Amino acid sequence: MQYTASVNTLSQPLVKQLINNADQYRLDIQTLANGSTIIDAGINAPGGLEAGRIITEICLGGMGTVSISQSTYTEHWPLTVNVHTSNPVLACLGSQYAGWSLSHDKYYALGSGPARALATKSKEGIVSPVEELYKELAYQDQSDQTVLVIENDKLPPLEIIEKVAAACSVSPEHLTIIVTPTSSLAGCVQVVGRVLEVAMHKAHALHFPLEHIIDGSGSAPICPPHPKFVQAMGRTNDAILFAGLVHLFVKGSDEAAEKLAHELPSSTSKDYGKPFAQIFKEYEYDFFKIDAMLFSPARVIVTAVESGNSFRAGHLDNALLNLSFGS
Amino acid sequence: MQYTASVNTLSQPLVKQLINNADQYRLDIQTLANGSTIIDAGINAPGGLEAGRIITEICLGGMGTVSISQSTYTEHWPLTVNVHTSNPVLACLGSQYAGWSLSHDKYYALGSGPARALATKSKEGIVSPVEELYKELAYQDQSDQTVLVIENDKLPPLEIIEKVAAACSVSPEHLTIIVTPTSSLAGCVQVVGRVLEVAMHKAHALHFPLEHIIDGSGSAPICPPHPKFVQAMGRTNDAILFAGLVHLFVKGSDEAAEKLAHELPSSTSKDYGKPFAQIFKEYEYDFFKIDAMLFSPARVIVTAVESGNSFRAGHLDNALLNLSFGS
Amino acid sequence: MQYTASVNTLSQPLVKQLINNADQYRLDIQTLANGSTIIDAGINAPGGLEAGRIITEICLGGMGTVSISQSTYTEHWPLTVNVHTSNPVLACLGSQYAGWSLSHDKYYALGSGPARALATKSKEGIVSPVEELYKELAYQDQSDQTVLVIENDKLPPLEIIEKVAAACSVSPEHLTIIVTPTSSLAGCVQVVGRVLEVAMHKAHALHFPLEHIIDGSGSAPICPPHPKFVQAMGRTNDAILFAGLVHLFVKGSDEAAEKLAHELPSSTSKDYGKPFAQIFKEYEYDFFKIDAMLFSPARVIVTAVESGNSFRAGHLDNALLNLSFGS
Repeated sequence: MQYTASVNTLSQPLVKQLINNADQYRLDIQTLANGSTIIDAGINAPGGLEAGRIITEICLGGMGTVSISQSTYTEHWPLTVNVHTSNPVLACLGSQYAGWSLSHDKYYALGSGPARALATKSKEGIVSPVEELYKELAYQDQSDQTVLVIENDKLPPLEIIEKVAAACSVSPEHLTIIVTPTSSLAGCVQVVGRVLEVAMHKAHALHFPLEHIIDGSGSAPICPPHPKFVQAMGRTNDAILFAGLVHLFVKGSDEAAEKLAHELPSSTSKDYGKPFAQIFKEYEYDFFKIDAMLFSPARVIVTAVESGNSFRAGHLDNALLNLSFGS
Repeated sequence: MQYTASVNTLSQPLVKQLINNADQYRLDIQTLANGSTIIDAGINAPGGLEAGRIITEICLGGMGTVSISQSTYTEHWPLTVNVHTSNPVLACLGSQYAGWSLSHDKYYALGSGPARALATKSKEGIVSPVEELYKELAYQDQSDQTVLVIENDKLPPLEIIEKVAAACSVSPEHLTIIVTPTSSLAGCVQVVGRVLEVAMHKAHALHFPLEHIIDGSGSAPICPPHPKFVQAMGRTNDAILFAGLVHLFVKGSDEAAEKLAHELPSSTSKDYGKPFAQIFKEYEYDFFKIDAMLFSPARVIVTAVESGNSFRAGHLDNALLNLSFGS
Repeated sequence: MQYTASVNTLSQPLVKQLINNADQYRLDIQTLANGSTIIDAGINAPGGLEAGRIITEICLGGMGTVSISQSTYTEHWPLTVNVHTSNPVLACLGSQYAGWSLSHDKYYALGSGPARALATKSKEGIVSPVEELYKELAYQDQSDQTVLVIENDKLPPLEIIEKVAAACSVSPEHLTIIVTPTSSLAGCVQVVGRVLEVAMHKAHALHFPLEHIIDGSGSAPICPPHPKFVQAMGRTNDAILFAGLVHLFVKGSDEAAEKLAHELPSSTSKDYGKPFAQIFKEYEYDFFKIDAMLFSPARVIVTAVESGNSFRAGHLDNALLNLSFGS
């Protein structure tokens, strides 16, 4: 499959919408000395649900539809985000996946969104963020403007901004960085809005051929934000792990589809069964000790389009959701 | 908090959309001798659900997202309106609240929407509509075009239109009045679409600090219209009182958030327990005898973002909803 | 009622959106020698859910809102399409209804969408597609550009394209044909998205006066596609027959509204009770032997707006839905 749509070009109108209506979306916009734009969506500015919804569509490279509504799916948490995209492989993995590790001195953050698709080539002094994945996708975007979404409670230092611009080969004045703290409403929406992406990412980790995934849709309850980082992050994950629901449509054999359905849900992980914050603490806050197979939706439907058969596994866990969300 | 987004500027594109596509939305557009525009959304023109959806977004000052879908929340009434805004204080209280009493001879109506935010100063011969609330919001809009939504089954007399234009300091040709009868579908949607606004308004009446409400979302079933005014109005209220569901996110202490959650639901009112039309009749159709605390959603979740704790109170009442909606 | 909105004019921006973003929506666009444009949404190109959503809005003549979300309505099939329109008679019957039989040699297909509203007059050598219905609607559209949606797994021969252009009195370069196979995701969405239309069409067949239907809304689960045509078509029908939910608002007497509610649901048909593919097989694949009254939503609410009373009939049938969808 060849991907030619530009996640950077398609997301720029949404970036402009945020910048031009910063008052409406309660965002703080700064232009740095180097010309880069910083959108603060929850540190010094309040941001909110709608800012988070638009930022999620930006993360999806302008190729996703994200809506907020009230649902009866969970026992206590009606506020829900629904996601579908016009191209799940490109939108979720080629853009939304938080695959770019950025650090400078004590600042560490994961970057997500369209800029990743420009920074696909290694250059001197720059660690290419997700080179291997982009090779596999055979996707290379072209754009002279870009945007990166950072989940953090502090604005990034100038060095990181310069690094991102250089890695993307754009001049700094054509780079926008959006910052959403995990403890903000915009942050909750944009992380829970990854419900389809984590399914795509785990499918990839399970070696399911990405080109066989032709479409998908997902939903999950928007978690109440928590002021402490670990609890906040725990809730955004638990929204997906305990109540995320994804329907994937795949090519290939029934056996492969059934295997995917059974292996995808979070409950298949050996670390499943406690709120994420507790697991994280028990592993002494070492993210890489956590079973990577944990990061996936609670409930999954996989339809094998070549046979018309559907396979389902996993389940909604209201008790664990309530434990995490503090009901 | 300083509010600088203009509810008038943001809503004008939606007003133009209605005027330019009146056939599509089944509206009747009149240009009066003084140049003002009247949009009839249910008196001589049929209007409809979609017209009501757009009018609700106009009421919210162009800062709200209103969607119509089918939900399983109530027993018998799947048609549902979902509302969230990019700024609930400004959109709901600074614009959507029906706070402008307009009368001339025997014509009496409540005005709602962006024009209220222009008519914030008392002038000779004009009773400023909601001066006190706007002082508290510290919000004053600037715009040379404006729109007012009137819930009535008759078009307003010219005197009222002139009064609105003068109060807003706009020339009459830059004023649009949208009229939605309570017994019309557009009227049902735009009143039930106040589910979040009534929660905001009651929070204010309960002296909860508005600047502590950082976000919110609401939903309620769209009531079947009734041809008689009292029953029609009763159903639009009951949709919210018996089945409205609101989730607010607030700053401040857990005690304040918990108190708000427990005091907000309609069931806390001494007048709760019968269809609204019956209460209204028992009070001899004197609106001001009804307990003001009745006007609020059935069920409320309040999340205290500084602790991450959520508080919930109230409940869906299918039996009363069916009694009101005539199931 | 006079209808003056142009389904062709209103749908053209959506057609341009598909053509200009073919990569994003994974469509194949061909310009034929005669200048006509073909959009392949599932034969050689994958298409997908979002392409199907936009194509459904095109079918509705640009007068419908179609959204995809996850719902709890059915037991096993959360992925759901919601439809409402600004004008159900014109959008559903004047455009969306698949009323144009097109054939050439062995190619046979049903055409749907805005082009039907241009082809309303009989001409020499051309069988006018749905003349009688348009006479009844008193609707005749004017446009020099048009679009027809064809549900088929093969691109139509040039002769059919020429015939459509001629019938619509547009030059071939101003005609776009969108092809969605029944076994594709876009095809599933655009057929299940007819949930409101089949209710409108059956109401018409039951001789309910169309001008009395003032509004409506519908939803149904998006079926998993099936590779075989008969099963694929069966599922798209069964999504509506076993789980479609429609709410209509009508003028006229309570008796007429109640009668409509009781006669509308699919379960009133003598052929109700088995997956559609099985019925079709038992009738030896002769479509016209199937009871026309079968094609309707599972569950219906009809509100008589002149009395405010609502009537309901029919029911969701999870067991038959699962049998059809292959749960």
